[in-house]
Amino acid sequence: MSLNTFGHLFRFTTWGESHGPALGATVDGCPPGVTIDEAMLQQWLDKRRPGQNRNTTQRQEPDAVRILSGVYEGQTTGTPIQLMIENTDQRSRDYGEIARTFRPGHADITYHLKYGLRDPRGGGRSSARETAARVAAGGVARAVLGALVPGLEIKGYMVAMGEMELDRARFDWDAIDRNDFWLPDAAAAPAWEDYLQSLRKAHDSVGAVVEVVARGVPAGLGAPVYGKLDTDLAAAMMSINAVKGVEIGEGMAAARLTGSANADEIFMGENGPEYGSNHAGGILGGISTGQDVVVRFAVKPTSSILTPRRSITIDGQPIEVVTKGRHDPCVGIRAVPVAEAMMACVILDHLLLHRGQVGDGPRGRIG
Amino acid sequence: MSLNTFGHLFRFTTWGESHGPALGATVDGCPPGVTIDEAMLQQWLDKRRPGQNRNTTQRQEPDAVRILSGVYEGQTTGTPIQLMIENTDQRSRDYGEIARTFRPGHADITYHLKYGLRDPRGGGRSSARETAARVAAGGVARAVLGALVPGLEIKGYMVAMGEMELDRARFDWDAIDRNDFWLPDAAAAPAWEDYLQSLRKAHDSVGAVVEVVARGVPAGLGAPVYGKLDTDLAAAMMSINAVKGVEIGEGMAAARLTGSANADEIFMGENGPEYGSNHAGGILGGISTGQDVVVRFAVKPTSSILTPRRSITIDGQPIEVVTKGRHDPCVGIRAVPVAEAMMACVILDHLLLHRGQVGDGPRGRIG
Amino acid sequence: MSLNTFGHLFRFTTWGESHGPALGATVDGCPPGVTIDEAMLQQWLDKRRPGQNRNTTQRQEPDAVRILSGVYEGQTTGTPIQLMIENTDQRSRDYGEIARTFRPGHADITYHLKYGLRDPRGGGRSSARETAARVAAGGVARAVLGALVPGLEIKGYMVAMGEMELDRARFDWDAIDRNDFWLPDAAAAPAWEDYLQSLRKAHDSVGAVVEVVARGVPAGLGAPVYGKLDTDLAAAMMSINAVKGVEIGEGMAAARLTGSANADEIFMGENGPEYGSNHAGGILGGISTGQDVVVRFAVKPTSSILTPRRSITIDGQPIEVVTKGRHDPCVGIRAVPVAEAMMACVILDHLLLHRGQVGDGPRGRIG
Amino acid sequence: MSLNTFGHLFRFTTWGESHGPALGATVDGCPPGVTIDEAMLQQWLDKRRPGQNRNTTQRQEPDAVRILSGVYEGQTTGTPIQLMIENTDQRSRDYGEIARTFRPGHADITYHLKYGLRDPRGGGRSSARETAARVAAGGVARAVLGALVPGLEIKGYMVAMGEMELDRARFDWDAIDRNDFWLPDAAAAPAWEDYLQSLRKAHDSVGAVVEVVARGVPAGLGAPVYGKLDTDLAAAMMSINAVKGVEIGEGMAAARLTGSANADEIFMGENGPEYGSNHAGGILGGISTGQDVVVRFAVKPTSSILTPRRSITIDGQPIEVVTKGRHDPCVGIRAVPVAEAMMACVILDHLLLHRGQVGDGPRGRIG
Repeated sequence: MSLNTFGHLFRFTTWGESHGPALGATVDGCPPGVTIDEAMLQQWLDKRRPGQNRNTTQRQEPDAVRILSGVYEGQTTGTPIQLMIENTDQRSRDYGEIARTFRPGHADITYHLKYGLRDPRGGGRSSARETAARVAAGGVARAVLGALVPGLEIKGYMVAMGEMELDRARFDWDAIDRNDFWLPDAAAAPAWEDYLQSLRKAHDSVGAVVEVVARGVPAGLGAPVYGKLDTDLAAAMMSINAVKGVEIGEGMAAARLTGSANADEIFMGENGPEYGSNHAGGILGGISTGQDVVVRFAVKPTSSILTPRRSITIDGQPIEVVTKGRHDPCVGIRAVPVAEAMMACVILDHLLLHRGQVGDGPRGRIG
Repeated sequence: MSLNTFGHLFRFTTWGESHGPALGATVDGCPPGVTIDEAMLQQWLDKRRPGQNRNTTQRQEPDAVRILSGVYEGQTTGTPIQLMIENTDQRSRDYGEIARTFRPGHADITYHLKYGLRDPRGGGRSSARETAARVAAGGVARAVLGALVPGLEIKGYMVAMGEMELDRARFDWDAIDRNDFWLPDAAAAPAWEDYLQSLRKAHDSVGAVVEVVARGVPAGLGAPVYGKLDTDLAAAMMSINAVKGVEIGEGMAAARLTGSANADEIFMGENGPEYGSNHAGGILGGISTGQDVVVRFAVKPTSSILTPRRSITIDGQPIEVVTKGRHDPCVGIRAVPVAEAMMACVILDHLLLHRGQVGDGPRGRIG
Repeated sequence: MSLNTFGHLFRFTTWGESHGPALGATVDGCPPGVTIDEAMLQQWLDKRRPGQNRNTTQRQEPDAVRILSGVYEGQTTGTPIQLMIENTDQRSRDYGEIARTFRPGHADITYHLKYGLRDPRGGGRSSARETAARVAAGGVARAVLGALVPGLEIKGYMVAMGEMELDRARFDWDAIDRNDFWLPDAAAAPAWEDYLQSLRKAHDSVGAVVEVVARGVPAGLGAPVYGKLDTDLAAAMMSINAVKGVEIGEGMAAARLTGSANADEIFMGENGPEYGSNHAGGILGGISTGQDVVVRFAVKPTSSILTPRRSITIDGQPIEVVTKGRHDPCVGIRAVPVAEAMMACVILDHLLLHRGQVGDGPRGRIG
Repeated sequence: MSLNTFGHLFRFTTWGESHGPALGATVDGCPPGVTIDEAMLQQWLDKRRPGQNRNTTQRQEPDAVRILSGVYEGQTTGTPIQLMIENTDQRSRDYGEIARTFRPGHADITYHLKYGLRDPRGGGRSSARETAARVAAGGVARAVLGALVPGLEIKGYMVAMGEMELDRARFDWDAIDRNDFWLPDAAAAPAWEDYLQSLRKAHDSVGAVVEVVARGVPAGLGAPVYGKLDTDLAAAMMSINAVKGVEIGEGMAAARLTGSANADEIFMGENGPEYGSNHAGGILGGISTGQDVVVRFAVKPTSSILTPRRSITIDGQPIEVVTKGRHDPCVGIRAVPVAEAMMACVILDHLLLHRGQVGDGPRGRIG
């Protein structure tokens, strides 16, 4: 059913609510004999951790991950890996007043309609806090990929936020890790910060576009027709809170192109096929080409804002909702490490699937 | 694993190659006691069928669907339904010359790299012909939805094609079925046709954007966190050949909005909650709100064109590829009934999942 | 959901009713590049085919299997393989009289209670005829295993039928294929035949025990805790019509043993570990040891007999049921090739799973 | 893949090793609005808990279960329920000496061959300790069944242990909970205890047969052909440590019966069909009849005994293995609550599946 599970052979199930005692991920199908420890996972959680600068929520959570199973003397054993993150800074009282109210643009109302009840503390299961568990699972995937695919690199970065847009001409892969916005153009970061702070002061929030790139993905990963690499990447990204659109390669802009402009011409290189362009985003027919895999997605603006919005109570009475508490003015920023984690999980999953069905390495030869 | 299977409780597996003896869909999990016959399915296949006008491929296929199992005396029995479509107009010779060549922008090369061999006749498994099987499965889903959710309506239409764009001010739901482009603006169709024919004459093709809307979807369908309604819709659309981007509601444009502009305010109506807008596309937290469910996706231009493109052969030799044969100048047109079918399958699947986990109808009451 | 699907990575979905136009199996996840054709599959179907001698049903079905997809120029392509068997000798009139009656010991009543309707022609979906599709799928699995695991051999045989029991002291592996009862003791076959014919003349039927052995299964297949090799074998056998019990190795008799008697002692052989006995049936902790994998199951006597049994009609009226038509006096005989097919599918599935998660071959070394 | 996951719609994944910090079950698909708390689950864990009398292992574990997610103010919310049991009495030193040795009849060697390493502390993942997590998950299933199917009752009991066998003529349903062997014949318990203690003193162990009965299961649960109720029950029981055989109803003895003796005749009762016998064990064609569902399974004797057995080390050297530590002389005793838990999970799962595909209640009417 996979309703709270992601993946085929490398699978994880996340559990936990924003203000419950803990949350985590149950990872199944991890290959054995891979070196892993809590510190390796923690580096990715630290990247996502809230309260690190004034551009994200001020909630203070150490987000310390514990490995409860599946690892023995620093190596994966092939059995399920339980990753647990305890919640410490919960402040349930911030949320008590809206337990019987539905915030516009938020999952409050749909959880209520579906289940008849919900955990209102901090958004419960629908909180972006769930994504901490994904980042932990993604850390495991990264460790395995590091062992199986030397040279593979996965990086996410912001390309737009409200009125701000990345200048692609200034793209700098190495700059990404050097600013609070994961911008591949470090010089642009102060302007983005000013813009975001002005919105925050206006009691508002804003959306964003994030791009994730995987370099060094072997050719041949993915499978027709419903287990395509791009299908799973689209599902992976769309499953992240607040995501409203997903693109592969050229994305929505492909609609404007002609076939002659869109075709990525093929040449024979030293080590196999090379391509004149990458409109395809590294995927043809659902299977990786060996080029960079490029995924992009849009995150809607945070619904929890201080600007009053009209809504109703559980009794059907009209009410004006103002959401206090500590919220991200742009959830796109912290979505970056989450999307990287999902990308890592999808690629590892398809690597294992390929190995299972076909064997090691691409099967077809060219030249 | 679901690599060629789609769905959770209502599931279908498609099989078959473009120029093999037949293709079809094995549908599992269909509720019993639903009236269904081949004519009901055929109406949807006829909508997708090639060769009906000069805007689509000239391949002539009756696409006659046969029900081989799971239906007794005109009613579904709850057992697997096998839907088979025999191929008749195959002309394998059109494709023989490119069996050892990789068409740029096509899955030829990735199938070869992955599997070491491929069925080159008409694109084999990667052909858009596979979508005929989806339309048949979608016909079953529509019949069941008709029985379980009176008033539910699903319609797809084109909103953009290369330089052409729908004028939303002229949107007419009833016009959709009355022109070859499934345009909600019948008066615009001739201009779209002229544009497409000029591209065809220039030996080129073009991309498109398709939108699919489901009206009358009950609130409460979908599930956190990986079995979300929007996650499954994104996977459904991305799994269609040539799709490069998927949007829900506001889609990629959500990145430009502020939280105050994006929030769909909630009011109490006669029959439950109503909303001041539908930026969310009918889905919050992965669960349907009861509003229209709105999905949009971009289709890249057909790779198979008469304009020469540079590529390589299986021996690694350079070659200029010109794809003859009978191809759609814009695959977006025939993607419309396919996307409707996928939408129907996803909604039915989540309806059954909801019924299984929660029971009939929404569980929460408001007012 | 897998309600009509079996397997994880190597999966098949069967479809079709006893007297519908056709039945078959949709096989997904088959490795590419394996030589296969219809004749290879037909040999196994011929082994299961009815009407070949007087010990099985007299229904005449050629059971000719057609490959409709997934194979190109005699090799698997890695895409779904559709295997179809058309029904020819249906005689629906044999069954018309009991359409509104429930045969004791038969699925008539439970299908009716569950679904509200059923296809009564020949038992519809609950007919043992469904197992023809499994045998076809098993033929694919055997072909792949032949390519991947040289020397692997799978054989089923009868060990008991009513009062008849195999004399293990006379066990002869090579005799199995040389008598109508798949007995590893050819000299015993005439007595078994006399016994069965006397039951048939008495308008009765009888149960049986079948054993299936796989020789040459690599060590390391299977996985804790719910995807164990023995768990999947138990499910595989229990899913066959009329099966009421499944045993691995010592089976139910393990309950009578002490730990000191049951332990299979381990010794170091030329090529790795060897064992002093095989109480375990080749599986420890759900994972294969490298010894023979031994599964045994009991089949209940055919419910469709000429001896009158008391029952009720759909209206709740009492009735005496006498089942005419052409039925096997002992379904255990034809269950032999079916069980072999299921064994082949399970072993291949776990081989691919192992390759996916762990890589080729056992990972641990001894000595 | 479900390698460490069990179930379709009601699913749980267990995680954790015998001597790791904790173990548990991640339960997904639980219906919302069901009252549940830790005390309700604890009662079942207490039933399975070791060290309660001299017939089971002397390891002292409180087995206190904590609910970490999915329950709010005492009610299930429909989101994943994490159940965690911390390990307290681990004594790793008991096992250190055999870390490089393979115990005969134990999963040590197969884990090593498969994964290349294993957690040797207390058997790691292959320890029967994993079943504590199942009992916790089963407690959730029982709570839901209690809400959805009033009157449903599930009880397991021993029917054989080595030379001891239950006298069916003395069967007393109410006696089951009143003796340490879960015997439906309380007067027999002292003899069973004497027998077991004599084996223990002889440094040996013994196997057992356990039977589990579910009374009050609605008709219509289960589904052809691979998601049958009996298929899932067989998998459920076979997945329990040390189980070597599973029977439904008549079980292996069905092989000895004739069709006329085996048929359960049907009569019309006040409230629907009634049956003259229950050879079928409450399941026909994989679907429940409404009669008692009867499952039986054999557990092999504990491999960990003080009697020396010959084996090899990881270096391939011969060694005599004597397993000290605290082990159950008959694991069948503590398998009783585990099997009950699995039965509860399977029945709930099929209840939800039925509700999803067919709707509430049986669909067909009789009379």
